[in-house]
Amino acid sequence: MAKRVTGPEIEKLIQLLAKVPGLGPRSARRAALHLIKKKDQLLGPLGSAMGEAYDKVKVCSRCGNVDTIDPCTVCTDDRRDQSVIIVVEDVSDLWALERAGVMNAAYHVLGGTLSPLDGVGPDDLNIKGLIDRVSEGGIKEIIIAVNATVEGQTTAHYITDRLADLGVAITRLAHGVPVGGELDYLDEGTLSAALRARTAI
Amino acid sequence: MAKRVTGPEIEKLIQLLAKVPGLGPRSARRAALHLIKKKDQLLGPLGSAMGEAYDKVKVCSRCGNVDTIDPCTVCTDDRRDQSVIIVVEDVSDLWALERAGVMNAAYHVLGGTLSPLDGVGPDDLNIKGLIDRVSEGGIKEIIIAVNATVEGQTTAHYITDRLADLGVAITRLAHGVPVGGELDYLDEGTLSAALRARTAI
Repeated sequence: MAKRVTGPEIEKLIQLLAKVPGLGPRSARRAALHLIKKKDQLLGPLGSAMGEAYDKVKVCSRCGNVDTIDPCTVCTDDRRDQSVIIVVEDVSDLWALERAGVMNAAYHVLGGTLSPLDGVGPDDLNIKGLIDRVSEGGIKEIIIAVNATVEGQTTAHYITDRLADLGVAITRLAHGVPVGGELDYLDEGTLSAALRARTAI
Repeated sequence: MAKRVTGPEIEKLIQLLAKVPGLGPRSARRAALHLIKKKDQLLGPLGSAMGEAYDKVKVCSRCGNVDTIDPCTVCTDDRRDQSVIIVVEDVSDLWALERAGVMNAAYHVLGGTLSPLDGVGPDDLNIKGLIDRVSEGGIKEIIIAVNATVEGQTTAHYITDRLADLGVAITRLAHGVPVGGELDYLDEGTLSAALRARTAI
């Protein structure tokens, strides 16, 4: 803004809101005004929730999930089959797979993918932690659920190699046509994978 | 989520973030993870900024702007021409007009528009405050900058009537073609207004 039209505290709130993914400078102003209008229902509680999350949040030392306890809610859940570990790149992938609600397994968050160009090597990811978990025994299957990108697949290959001698079943997500997807909009790689992995009706 | 995968404090943060305009349930989760990853740069400062805004924010008793001082930054700005008042529906309109940076005037925020169907009458808006400000004297011009909607124009007429006897010039924003706008996409009302208000080149 050319001239100051409001207090520095509110300007600062807008500036910080603009850094939240999904909000830009313009929507940050709209969000700030909405928060201020809903002062007691939203601004106060959200500020407190952020403060509490800031104080309590920790990364699970076992699987890399984000939680307020360590080991996390997933790792300490007795109703899960802790002998199956789904390996994901990011916490957001863990949460996405849980929304699908298909598996009742444990997880392992790598924290990214191997990317030599960006200087990300095996030691920068939480791969040693995965090997330690498998070496401790009691693990039957590792499901590698990294993204179907070049970096993701490179990482999957690396992990498969490292786990090869530990006597654990290693699987990966199926490639194919997304549910609801139109063939015309899919790339050749996806279509050929879906054809090769065709199933009997 | 079907099963709990993280602590209740983080779930609560996600739920509250989903109520911020511009964020939905899915982007709230993404935003929460981003905030947690940028704990010290973003989550902590944003929580503090919200707490500070919650404690200090107030509505200007003179013009209705949102600020941390009362009267607000705009009302106490000596470099502004306080004899010209721009009347707007909402604080967001005040901020938008200030971004244009054309006028160096005072403002008056109505807090909405007359809307009999929704039970919003003159007493529900900050109209009396405007009449009081004009009655005190020293005001030369009132620029009515409400939205070009039916409710906005009804409100503009009402305010014009109420101010008619107070000896102050009353103007409104020009109607016309938005800068950068294509004629083909404009409605007939805008086009006829732009034609009637045509200017010599």
